[in-house]
Amino acid sequence: MDIFEAIHTRRSIRSYTDGAVSQEQIDVLLQAAMTAPSAGNAQPWHFIVVQDRAMLDRLSTYNPYVKMLAQTPLAILVLGDLSLEKYPGYWPIDCSAAVQNLLLAARGMELGAVWTGVYPDQARMDALRDMLAIPKDIMPHSLIPVGVPAVESKRVDRFKPERIHQERW
Amino acid sequence: MDIFEAIHTRRSIRSYTDGAVSQEQIDVLLQAAMTAPSAGNAQPWHFIVVQDRAMLDRLSTYNPYVKMLAQTPLAILVLGDLSLEKYPGYWPIDCSAAVQNLLLAARGMELGAVWTGVYPDQARMDALRDMLAIPKDIMPHSLIPVGVPAVESKRVDRFKPERIHQERW
Repeated sequence: MDIFEAIHTRRSIRSYTDGAVSQEQIDVLLQAAMTAPSAGNAQPWHFIVVQDRAMLDRLSTYNPYVKMLAQTPLAILVLGDLSLEKYPGYWPIDCSAAVQNLLLAARGMELGAVWTGVYPDQARMDALRDMLAIPKDIMPHSLIPVGVPAVESKRVDRFKPERIHQERW
Repeated sequence: MDIFEAIHTRRSIRSYTDGAVSQEQIDVLLQAAMTAPSAGNAQPWHFIVVQDRAMLDRLSTYNPYVKMLAQTPLAILVLGDLSLEKYPGYWPIDCSAAVQNLLLAARGMELGAVWTGVYPDQARMDALRDMLAIPKDIMPHSLIPVGVPAVESKRVDRFKPERIHQERW
């Protein structure tokens, strides 16, 4: 798929068929995520791949915005590792670039995915830390349900010329 | 360009020819950036497009990591707008997704670009706020020099299987 088609047809998918995601597809998603830029090329990220049905169901109720996890065969939790930072404070930005790559890679394989926010919501971070046995210097950043979309990914136009400023504010 | 080629050959470009970037290319970059996902679809971003040679030269010395601005015909400053947030605290993540889309779009047009960090570095934010007359509730997030690359964009392999955890940490 062309890069611009992927960018402009990537949507937040919240409805899935019961189709599977293969190990090869999971590898492609993680390869894309880990290729993201990061401050000082520190690559301060980890990934927890959840495919266990009971855990996905349990995760689906940990906050009100992740119900679709009860439908997806896969969730990828992106985490920041404070000990890997070269320039402290940039890990949330680095992890965000990894997430966006992952979402575009999902779209590139015609999979569906949706970015569900974790950091900086402390209650969400604590809940995931408990459920997935995450150490204290590892920061849950974003939880990404992935599956086979039950809906078409239509092109979206969010262009707002009024947000563009020439030369200065 | 294929989405996976764009993801895996996007590099931080720090050396540029004196080639120009057209208005059409700038529009493509901003279209891609504004199509990024954001928390609650709030799209809490703005963009300052800098093409003035004197300002680019001045910006090139505002911190030690942006010297390449003296070579590029263009820089795009991505900014967060706190007043547009639906879920407070997510604007740096949203702006990061916009930046990553912008970088991939640059690669898709065979332009070169590099993500130079601003937020959360207070000194950098203050300096840009002064130079570009940015109001106090608007947050400079990332400054992206863009131009015609003087170097080839080779495929990079950053895959680290040890960063992948199955089912839990």
